[in-house]
Amino acid sequence: MRYMEDFAAGQSFTAGPVEVTAEEVVAFASRYDPQPFHTDHAAAEQSFFKGLASSGWMTGALTMRMLVDCGLNIAGGLIGRDVELTWPRPTYAGDSLRTVSEVLEVIPSRSKPDRGMIRVRTETLNQRDEVVQVMTARMLVHARPQK
Amino acid sequence: MRYMEDFAAGQSFTAGPVEVTAEEVVAFASRYDPQPFHTDHAAAEQSFFKGLASSGWMTGALTMRMLVDCGLNIAGGLIGRDVELTWPRPTYAGDSLRTVSEVLEVIPSRSKPDRGMIRVRTETLNQRDEVVQVMTARMLVHARPQK
Repeated sequence: MRYMEDFAAGQSFTAGPVEVTAEEVVAFASRYDPQPFHTDHAAAEQSFFKGLASSGWMTGALTMRMLVDCGLNIAGGLIGRDVELTWPRPTYAGDSLRTVSEVLEVIPSRSKPDRGMIRVRTETLNQRDEVVQVMTARMLVHARPQK
Repeated sequence: MRYMEDFAAGQSFTAGPVEVTAEEVVAFASRYDPQPFHTDHAAAEQSFFKGLASSGWMTGALTMRMLVDCGLNIAGGLIGRDVELTWPRPTYAGDSLRTVSEVLEVIPSRSKPDRGMIRVRTETLNQRDEVVQVMTARMLVHARPQK
């Protein structure tokens, strides 16, 4: 497991692929984002997206799954403080996603020497190497315990 | 349904409540954020969160569900371009969430007169009126079609 001292700007981590199935797109959206372009093939074809697109929240959630699996291995777990997300293009049923993450910054806490944050930028790419999501997150990290 | 011309800064919309069940917290996290503080009651009690906490992505997804239901009623659907999210405190199994949204800005496109964006700030609150998430999103809006 990695502590704050183990992170440095420029480190990179990759994960994936995960497959985006129509079944999961529809199931996720039926609960969390029930709009026809996420839940109905025929309606999606006629929509802004011109195809069955995943909810951006599902793209984000699948990205989180890859981050958990990507080898960041933050001691104490991956706990996000804040996130900026943008979706340059849709994610479609049938896509295969992967992530490329880079540590941008390590930010020790000014008031609490036992912790800090890392700022990590994660691109989520599809099988054509097109970026479908860019996420910049600040995550809690712990300082290595003193012996 | 609302077009760009129907939105103005200061409009507000509310939705909810939705209940956060332990079953859904565990099921969501098992797929998208498999960390013990989201999937295992006993481990969660011993963790940073001191209780079974939902993945921030589930809090976000439930917020999206409430936004779809909240009466924004954007013509063509709710399509996010980008989002900033922060989680001031955890969401726990057993919580009941609601949303309060405010239109911050209406931004007509400079290049495409048939569309624009609205910037909307949404607070997600628990049953103690504590803010568990603040989201600021830019969403696509269409100009009212010319007759």
